[in-house]
Amino acid sequence: MADGLNMSRRIRRTPYTDRVETVGVKGFSVVNHMLLPKAFSRSVEDDYWHLREHVQIWDVSCQRQVQIEGEDAVELVQLMTPRNLTNAVVGECLYIPLIDERAGLINDPVLLKLSDNKYWLSIADSDVLLWAEGLAFGKGLKVQVSEPDVSPLAIQGPKSEDLLVSIFGKHIREIGFFKFAWVSFKGTEQLIARSGYSRQGGFEIYLEGNQLGGDLWDIIWEAGRKYNIAPGCPNLIERIEGGLLSYGNEMTRENNPLEIGLGKFCSLDGTVEYIGRKALEHIAQKGPDRKIHGVLFDVPSCPTCSIPWPVKHDETIIGQITSGIYSPRLEKNVGVALIDKGYWTVGLEVSVTLPDGQKRKGQLSNLPFD
Amino acid sequence: MADGLNMSRRIRRTPYTDRVETVGVKGFSVVNHMLLPKAFSRSVEDDYWHLREHVQIWDVSCQRQVQIEGEDAVELVQLMTPRNLTNAVVGECLYIPLIDERAGLINDPVLLKLSDNKYWLSIADSDVLLWAEGLAFGKGLKVQVSEPDVSPLAIQGPKSEDLLVSIFGKHIREIGFFKFAWVSFKGTEQLIARSGYSRQGGFEIYLEGNQLGGDLWDIIWEAGRKYNIAPGCPNLIERIEGGLLSYGNEMTRENNPLEIGLGKFCSLDGTVEYIGRKALEHIAQKGPDRKIHGVLFDVPSCPTCSIPWPVKHDETIIGQITSGIYSPRLEKNVGVALIDKGYWTVGLEVSVTLPDGQKRKGQLSNLPFD
Repeated sequence: MADGLNMSRRIRRTPYTDRVETVGVKGFSVVNHMLLPKAFSRSVEDDYWHLREHVQIWDVSCQRQVQIEGEDAVELVQLMTPRNLTNAVVGECLYIPLIDERAGLINDPVLLKLSDNKYWLSIADSDVLLWAEGLAFGKGLKVQVSEPDVSPLAIQGPKSEDLLVSIFGKHIREIGFFKFAWVSFKGTEQLIARSGYSRQGGFEIYLEGNQLGGDLWDIIWEAGRKYNIAPGCPNLIERIEGGLLSYGNEMTRENNPLEIGLGKFCSLDGTVEYIGRKALEHIAQKGPDRKIHGVLFDVPSCPTCSIPWPVKHDETIIGQITSGIYSPRLEKNVGVALIDKGYWTVGLEVSVTLPDGQKRKGQLSNLPFD
Repeated sequence: MADGLNMSRRIRRTPYTDRVETVGVKGFSVVNHMLLPKAFSRSVEDDYWHLREHVQIWDVSCQRQVQIEGEDAVELVQLMTPRNLTNAVVGECLYIPLIDERAGLINDPVLLKLSDNKYWLSIADSDVLLWAEGLAFGKGLKVQVSEPDVSPLAIQGPKSEDLLVSIFGKHIREIGFFKFAWVSFKGTEQLIARSGYSRQGGFEIYLEGNQLGGDLWDIIWEAGRKYNIAPGCPNLIERIEGGLLSYGNEMTRENNPLEIGLGKFCSLDGTVEYIGRKALEHIAQKGPDRKIHGVLFDVPSCPTCSIPWPVKHDETIIGQITSGIYSPRLEKNVGVALIDKGYWTVGLEVSVTLPDGQKRKGQLSNLPFD
């Protein structure tokens, strides 16, 4: 489902938007007040197969960085997340849920530790900048909080390593998963991480300096021709199959980290202090009321999920699907749903009610689907 | 300019989206993670003429409310804005710039005082909820901050009063400009204000309870037929002519209230304490470096302004246009621009450089344009 998107300065263009338009973008989403390309000339299914086999270049500038710098930086970051950051090391990326006092999710950024006093939070779609600034001001912390001029460009797919080695050199191969290093580009040093919003392998270049965006895109695009590069974007089929969750879709302020499977990123033994600790410990003690699951359900292809779809067992509503799409590999529809306690059985027979009232038979599944 | 908008649950639908689709919406923007209809089947120009003569119904649910309630509520709200709220009265709407420590604009909401301990901030496009919550937590204030289930529906245009009197009764006529009252609707009491993002007169109904959205739309739509009602949205021609500014377009964190003409809403004599007071007083003492102006410039019609357009006097860049469009009434293009000190002369000859490199002659103008 795509309607028109009316443009204005408020919906910020990125350093790569000109290039994305040149290669034929057909649709966008809006994340953090910025354009996220979401469709090109090929179908989502063709993009899915291409991503699994070749290499794609994605404009993910909307993953804005919230930079927290200063002598109280680690204190502020730890306050914001239940993940224990005591042993975090410079050069690491850490997936950190951010929660409020009721343990509701505010965002689920990737944290990059640049130095003991400098951090980037690479955020999903909510103004973490304002949350961090409000906390810092209110508590009188010695930090500077800002949105630096950093625009991530993702290179995803099995050929991404070979492509980037051909441009930046062999040390790219030595970057571990969820680790970052630096590459030289036009007289600057740029951060590159082995990370990205797919399960096909890849990297994200956190380009600092928007004026370099066109050149970075071009050099990757040209070198990518021999690897069959294509423009792409987070692929809904691939991310659902891979069990990658999306803030605003699978999780909102109404959800806590434990019910969506992020317990492994939560310190629950009182080792560290953070906002929402008591609420989260309380949920852990009694156990979450819901848990995230996959749902595999019958064809034909389901529509876009813009309002959650009820999932029923017999005639009882046991949860709702928040993202769903047809998987050409599994030849069924795949969805992600929070399922009520008492029904957490893989293989459980369920039905999915689509917006037009149609019911489709399905089964609960593990996540990822593979 | 409109490309496709890819839908998902994260881009929230409103209580009125079904109705808006029924009447033929063609394009949306995204504000506060929510759909804002921005185009219907008629042209922006036809909508402009209609708005000036008849009545329109606008889905402005994206004007989310940040509710601040509790014994420290007024303390928190005053901390966030330079406007002196000491004499604010229940039943008033107040336009309040929100600023940071450097006096940069965080948002420009309308404040509704519901009681001495309960306020709504009806916000533009940034997560003021997180800013307010961060401040409240950091300072340990006794407040509850939340986003209530409130979805404003605007009725705008010269016939809006007659239309709403026909539905809700004669007391509608007694509501003063930027004041609010209550109407009975299906067993509920709903807030109605004489306000809205046009200069053609009108009201906003702050509907509480999304399940009532369809019924509210329908009753207004049916009664509106005899007033020639049409679906609409904030009209770019009308708002630029009227000098109404847009957060994210005319103002960002890089701008302060004084340069965009909001000095009259700023206490600069130390009467009240707020975040950014010292920075704002410093700017007031030396005078702002830029001031907002209108620019009237030559046809043919300018494109959509998604990247600011340089404004030059002779060959010197003296500012940039952040919103612009062709005005069929003035038969010229109209734009809004921040202009550097030294060039604040209405009638000054300028040129505007469009994205394709074309230069158009123009003159500085007052705002509003009329």
